[in-house]
Amino acid sequence: MIKTTTVKVGEQPTGVPMEVPVIKIQGQGNGPRVYIQANIHGAEVQGNAVIYQLLEFFRQYPPQGDVVMVPQANPLGINQKSGEFTLGRFDPVTGTNWNRQYHFDSSLLEPFSQQYLDADEAVIRDAFRERLREQFYERQSSPWGLTCGQHLAMNLQEMAMEADIVLDLHTGPISARHLYVPEYARERARHFNIPLNILIPSDFDGALDEASFSPWWQLSQQFAKHGRKLPVMVDAFTLELGSQELLDVNAAERDALGICNYLQHQGMWPDKPFNCDPISLYACDLSDYKAYHSPAGGQVEYQALLNQPLAAGKPLATLWHFNTLGSESCLSRELTLPCDSIPVLHFASASVQQGTELYKVLTNTFML
Amino acid sequence: MIKTTTVKVGEQPTGVPMEVPVIKIQGQGNGPRVYIQANIHGAEVQGNAVIYQLLEFFRQYPPQGDVVMVPQANPLGINQKSGEFTLGRFDPVTGTNWNRQYHFDSSLLEPFSQQYLDADEAVIRDAFRERLREQFYERQSSPWGLTCGQHLAMNLQEMAMEADIVLDLHTGPISARHLYVPEYARERARHFNIPLNILIPSDFDGALDEASFSPWWQLSQQFAKHGRKLPVMVDAFTLELGSQELLDVNAAERDALGICNYLQHQGMWPDKPFNCDPISLYACDLSDYKAYHSPAGGQVEYQALLNQPLAAGKPLATLWHFNTLGSESCLSRELTLPCDSIPVLHFASASVQQGTELYKVLTNTFML
Amino acid sequence: MIKTTTVKVGEQPTGVPMEVPVIKIQGQGNGPRVYIQANIHGAEVQGNAVIYQLLEFFRQYPPQGDVVMVPQANPLGINQKSGEFTLGRFDPVTGTNWNRQYHFDSSLLEPFSQQYLDADEAVIRDAFRERLREQFYERQSSPWGLTCGQHLAMNLQEMAMEADIVLDLHTGPISARHLYVPEYARERARHFNIPLNILIPSDFDGALDEASFSPWWQLSQQFAKHGRKLPVMVDAFTLELGSQELLDVNAAERDALGICNYLQHQGMWPDKPFNCDPISLYACDLSDYKAYHSPAGGQVEYQALLNQPLAAGKPLATLWHFNTLGSESCLSRELTLPCDSIPVLHFASASVQQGTELYKVLTNTFML
Amino acid sequence: MIKTTTVKVGEQPTGVPMEVPVIKIQGQGNGPRVYIQANIHGAEVQGNAVIYQLLEFFRQYPPQGDVVMVPQANPLGINQKSGEFTLGRFDPVTGTNWNRQYHFDSSLLEPFSQQYLDADEAVIRDAFRERLREQFYERQSSPWGLTCGQHLAMNLQEMAMEADIVLDLHTGPISARHLYVPEYARERARHFNIPLNILIPSDFDGALDEASFSPWWQLSQQFAKHGRKLPVMVDAFTLELGSQELLDVNAAERDALGICNYLQHQGMWPDKPFNCDPISLYACDLSDYKAYHSPAGGQVEYQALLNQPLAAGKPLATLWHFNTLGSESCLSRELTLPCDSIPVLHFASASVQQGTELYKVLTNTFML
Repeated sequence: MIKTTTVKVGEQPTGVPMEVPVIKIQGQGNGPRVYIQANIHGAEVQGNAVIYQLLEFFRQYPPQGDVVMVPQANPLGINQKSGEFTLGRFDPVTGTNWNRQYHFDSSLLEPFSQQYLDADEAVIRDAFRERLREQFYERQSSPWGLTCGQHLAMNLQEMAMEADIVLDLHTGPISARHLYVPEYARERARHFNIPLNILIPSDFDGALDEASFSPWWQLSQQFAKHGRKLPVMVDAFTLELGSQELLDVNAAERDALGICNYLQHQGMWPDKPFNCDPISLYACDLSDYKAYHSPAGGQVEYQALLNQPLAAGKPLATLWHFNTLGSESCLSRELTLPCDSIPVLHFASASVQQGTELYKVLTNTFML
Repeated sequence: MIKTTTVKVGEQPTGVPMEVPVIKIQGQGNGPRVYIQANIHGAEVQGNAVIYQLLEFFRQYPPQGDVVMVPQANPLGINQKSGEFTLGRFDPVTGTNWNRQYHFDSSLLEPFSQQYLDADEAVIRDAFRERLREQFYERQSSPWGLTCGQHLAMNLQEMAMEADIVLDLHTGPISARHLYVPEYARERARHFNIPLNILIPSDFDGALDEASFSPWWQLSQQFAKHGRKLPVMVDAFTLELGSQELLDVNAAERDALGICNYLQHQGMWPDKPFNCDPISLYACDLSDYKAYHSPAGGQVEYQALLNQPLAAGKPLATLWHFNTLGSESCLSRELTLPCDSIPVLHFASASVQQGTELYKVLTNTFML
Repeated sequence: MIKTTTVKVGEQPTGVPMEVPVIKIQGQGNGPRVYIQANIHGAEVQGNAVIYQLLEFFRQYPPQGDVVMVPQANPLGINQKSGEFTLGRFDPVTGTNWNRQYHFDSSLLEPFSQQYLDADEAVIRDAFRERLREQFYERQSSPWGLTCGQHLAMNLQEMAMEADIVLDLHTGPISARHLYVPEYARERARHFNIPLNILIPSDFDGALDEASFSPWWQLSQQFAKHGRKLPVMVDAFTLELGSQELLDVNAAERDALGICNYLQHQGMWPDKPFNCDPISLYACDLSDYKAYHSPAGGQVEYQALLNQPLAAGKPLATLWHFNTLGSESCLSRELTLPCDSIPVLHFASASVQQGTELYKVLTNTFML
Repeated sequence: MIKTTTVKVGEQPTGVPMEVPVIKIQGQGNGPRVYIQANIHGAEVQGNAVIYQLLEFFRQYPPQGDVVMVPQANPLGINQKSGEFTLGRFDPVTGTNWNRQYHFDSSLLEPFSQQYLDADEAVIRDAFRERLREQFYERQSSPWGLTCGQHLAMNLQEMAMEADIVLDLHTGPISARHLYVPEYARERARHFNIPLNILIPSDFDGALDEASFSPWWQLSQQFAKHGRKLPVMVDAFTLELGSQELLDVNAAERDALGICNYLQHQGMWPDKPFNCDPISLYACDLSDYKAYHSPAGGQVEYQALLNQPLAAGKPLATLWHFNTLGSESCLSRELTLPCDSIPVLHFASASVQQGTELYKVLTNTFML
C-alpha cells in the first residue's frame, strides 16, 4: 500500500539527473487526496523528519484518502554548499527564489466558467483540473524550453495539482513555528495547532501554496461574478517548522501530530485517532506581518525572544559598531519597534548590512 | 563647471559606508537634464568607460543641459567576488536582482490628474516631480526601514528622478550591443545607433528605465482618460553595451558617440557637433525577444554568431554529453531554433543545466 | 592614553580602501607588549566583543605594558555574504584560508645566530626583531606584488611582530571554548582558564599564532644547536571563543577575564586585580585532536554534547537518509567514535556530504 | 575492447552518489599503461573534448598499452554554479583546491629501498606499486573517515597509480596552452608540442602529476643514496589547454594530436602514425614562472597578448580607477613588468582587488 518511486526534476551539467523521492500511500476509502512536500529551500530540512513521522502515523493509522509525499524536494538547493551552509533559497545562477516559480495562467477562467456555469460541483472539479493539466502540458511543450527552476517547479506541481490538500513544509532562518493561512481557510487552520499564523490573501504569486489554492479560489470568485456560489475546492498551506539547518526528529513528531489533527478534521480518519493539546493561537494579516530592517551596518545581539509578546519600545536587538571602539562615536545602539508585536523569526548571522531584515514580527495580532 | 561628489548608498557590517561617485556638469543653457548611470550589475563594467568618454566629449562640447553621471553605481555588487568572477547581478543575501528594486506607487496618479487636469505642461511637470519626491521621502521615513537593495535603488533614483533623460548602462553576459526602447520613444531611439533593439511596453517592473519613464507614461495615460493629451515628459533607456567582465575603452568611445548623437537630437547641442555613420537597426517586440533554454544538462559549444541572422533550423549550439563517451548513448546533439532569428547574447559558461538560458534572440524582426 | 587609528589592509575593485580599526593603549610601566586581534575569519565575531570588554578592563586597571588591539581585522571576510551567512573563512577568489598567509622565512636563522651567539638576551631580542622587519620590508617591495591575502596578513603582522604576546581571537563553527597552546608555553596557558586545550608543535604553517612565536622558538632551537640556551621570547595563542555568527557580550566579559588573568601572570598588573574561578582544564596533543568525517551523505542530528566526555561507541550523531523513506533501505544510522573523547565542536549545517567534518574531539586527554 | 563504467567518488547530502565516467581501452601489446583525466577543476572543460578526440584516435589506431580515461572527473566541481560561472577550483565548503588532495607518505621509502636494493627493476616496480596500494587501503580504512576532497582524490588516484604515464588535463583562466614538466622528463616533454613549458621540481605537493611521479622520483633518489641508479618509472604531466569555460572541439583535435605524438615516442604505436608540425617551444624554471599582482584595486584592460614576447617596461595592462572620474586624482595607470617575459595567462574578470593575480608570465625563458 506504500509505494516509493522517484521523479526526475532536472539535469546537471555532468548529465546527472536530479531526482526527488516520492512516497505514495493508497487511501482506504474516500478521504481527501493529500500532497506534502519538504525542503524546497535547501537549508530547510525539518520537513523531511516530519514526513518521516507522518509516514509512521500513516502506517499505524491507514488514511482514507491517497497521500503523496516528497521529502528533499530540491536536490540542487540541498546539495548547494557555500562555506558550511546550504545556499538553498534561490537558484545560484539567477537568484530566483525556488518557491516563486510555480505556474498558473488565469486566462482560462472566464471561458471555463461560462462553459461550466450550471455543472455539478464534481463535474466542475474534474473538468477544471483537466484544464489545469492541459495548460501545463502546453507550457512544457514549448520549443523554447523552460528554466531550471521551472522544470523543478512543474514536476512537483504536476503531483500537487492532483491533490485536494497541499502542504509545503518550510522553516524560517532562526524561527518559531508559524503558518501561512489563506483567508478563506482560516477556520480549518486552527487544527494545525501552530502558535503563530499569518492570514494571506488568495492571489497568485508563484509559491506552491498559492499555485495550489489560488486557481480554485479565483474560480470560485469567477463563478460568484456570474451569481453562483462555488466552494474553494482545494486547501493549501505553507508550514514554517522552526529554524533552518536544524533537524530535530522528536520535535518533528509534534509537528506531524498537528498535521494529522488537521487532516482528521478534513475526513482523513473518521474515528479521529489524533489528539493535540490546545495552545494559544495568535494571528495577524499579511499586511501586519512586518519586517524590521537594520538601520545601519554592524554586528548584532538578537535579544527579543521568539513567540513572546514584545511591547513597543522594548529591546529588540543591540547593534554594535566595533569599528568605533575606543573613539567617541556611538559604539552600540538599542533597536526597538514602534508598536507591540510578537517576534516570529530573526536573521541567522551576527553581521548585517544596512537594510538586512533583522526580525519579522506579527503586529495587530488577534486570536485565530 | 564639473563637480564631483559622492552619495552614500548603504553600509557594510564593518561600518564602512558604501558610496558611489557622482559627476555633475552644469549646463550652458536650456537643454534637457540628463542622468547616466553604469555598473549597477557588478560584472557589467563597460558603461564606466563610456562615462569616461562622455566626460571627454562634454569637456570638449559643453552641453546645454545639466548632466549627472554615476559610474560604478553598485559598490556591493562590483566588489562581490565568487571565484574569479564578479557575482554582481543579484543581492548575495536574498537573490534579488539589483535592477528590480526601484520604486513607484501608482496610487498617486488619479488624485494628481484630477487636481492638475487643466494646468500648464510646465506646471504639471514640476508638480508631478514634487509628488514623486514626496512619495519617496515618505517611504524612506518608514520606522521599519528599507532593504539593502532598496537603500541603493532609492539613493540612485533620487538623482535620476530629477532628469528628463535617464540612461542606464548595462551589458549582457556574452553579448552584442542592444537597446531596450519604450514603445513611445521608438522614433528617438534610432539616434543611439545601436544595431539590435527591443521595444518594451511602458509598465513598471522595478528596473531603472521603467521607474524613470513609467510614472510619466502612466500620467499621460491618466490624462488621456480625462480627455487631455499630455506628452510623456521623460525618456529612459537601458543600453546593453557588449559583454560583462570586459573593459574596452576604445569601443567605449563609439558607444559614447551614439549617446551624444541621441542627446543632440534632444537639444543638448543646438549646433549638432556629433556624427554617427548610420548602420542597419533591427528591432522586435519584447514578446518576440525569446530565450532558448537548454533541453538537457551538458557542456556547450556556442556556434551561432551574435548580431548575425540565423535561419530556422540552422546550428545554434552543440550540446555535449561527455558522460556517455565510449558508450552507445547520444554523445552530442545540435540545437536549433524553430524560427528565423538574430542572436543577441549567449550564456557565459560552457557547463549548463537543463533549463539554462543558452541564447536570447530577436524574432519577427523589423527595421527600427 | 588610548588612541585609535586605522590601518589600510587592501583595496577593493571600486577603489574603496579596506581598513581595520586599531586601538593603542600606552602602558604605565614595564609590562609586556601585547597584540590582540579578532574576526580574521569573517563569521567569527565574538572576539570583537571580547576586545570591547578588555578595553573596559584596561580603562579600569591601566596596564603596565603597551597594548594594541584590532577588532574586525578582516573587512573583506566580514562583509562577504553568501545567503544569510558570512563566507569569511577563505578568500572567495582563491579559496585560501585567511589565517594561513602570514610570513616567515627561516633562512635568516643561521646567519643571525652565528652573529649574535654571545650577545645579551636584550640585544638578541632587538636585533632579531629588526631582522624580521627587514625581511618584511624586502618582501613588500617586490615588483611582482603580493596577493590580496598577503596584503592583509602583512599589515596585521607588522603590528603583531612588535609584541611579546600575541592573541588571535577566533571561534569554531558550533563550538565549545578551546585554546591552541604551543608546547613550550603549556604552563602559562592554564591561566586563560579555557576548558579544552590543544598542544601544538612549534612549527610554522602560516597562522598568526605560529607566525608570531615560531621564529622565536626556531631561534631558540638554533641557539641550542650552538650550545646556548635561549628562552622563547614571544608567547602567542589562538583562542576559540565559542560559535561563529554569535555575539554574546556578557559571555565576552568572562572571556576577557581569562585573558586578563593570563596577562597578569605575565606581569601586566603587578597587584593582580583579576580573579578567575578555577575550572577543570582538559588537553590533548594536536595529533590526538581528531576530526570525524561523515561516512556518507545525508542529513544530521548532532547528539553528542560539546565539552562533555563521550565514551567510545556512544551516540555521536544520527545520519538520516530521507531519500530512502518508505523503502527497505537503511533510513538512518547512528554514528559513533572508536575511542573515548571530549567533543569540541561540530559542523554548522544539517546537510552533509560524504566526508564532511562532523565533529572535532579531544582524545587521549589529560589535565593541562 | 573499449569498456565504459563509472566509479563512485563521493555522496551528496541528498544521498545522490557522485560518479565519474571511466573509459577503458585494452592495449594490443606491450605498450605503456596510460591514465588520462580531465575537468578536475569544474570550469576547465576543454580536456573532455580532448578525451573525445583521443578516443577517436585510439579507435582508428588501437594502442599497444592499456588506456584509462576519465572525463568530467569532478562532478561536484562541475555542477557547482555561482552566478553564470562554474565555481569549480576549490571545495566550496572548505576552500581546499580540488587538485591538492592526492596522497603520498614518504615514510615507506627507506624500508622499501633497503628491502629491494638488489632486486630487478621489474620486481621493484611491482613491489613498490603494491606498497603504494597498501598505503592507500590503510588510509581509506581509517575509522575517522576522509574529507570530501580526499574521497574524490583517492578514487581517482587508485586508477592513476596503476599507470606508467599520467596526464591531467586542465586549463588556465584566460590562457595560452602550457605544460608543467617534471625536470627529469624534460626531453620527452617536447613531443607534446605545447608552446610554453614550466619545469617543475619533483617534490610532492598534492597535485595529481606530483602524486603520480614524485613517489617514483623519490624512490630513485633513495636508491641513489644507496648507490644504485634507478630510472624514474612513471611520467606525469599537467597540460593546460587554453581557457576555462570554453569548449572547442576542433582545437581539441590538435591538443589530442600532441598527446598522441608524445605517446608514440613512449612506445604506444611502434609504427608512429601521428605527425605534428614542429613549433617553437619556450620554457622556464618554476621559480621564473612569475605572477604579477595588481598594485591597487580597479578595473582592468588586459593588453599584453598571450604567448607573445613582452619586453620589460612595455604595456601589460591598464588599471582604471573610475571612482576618480572628473577629479584631479589619477584616473588610470599603465602596468608593466620589470623584465622581459612571455605572458601565459591572465585573470578572467575586469574587476580586481589590490593583490589580484593579473598575469602569469615566463621569465628567463629558453628553448625547451
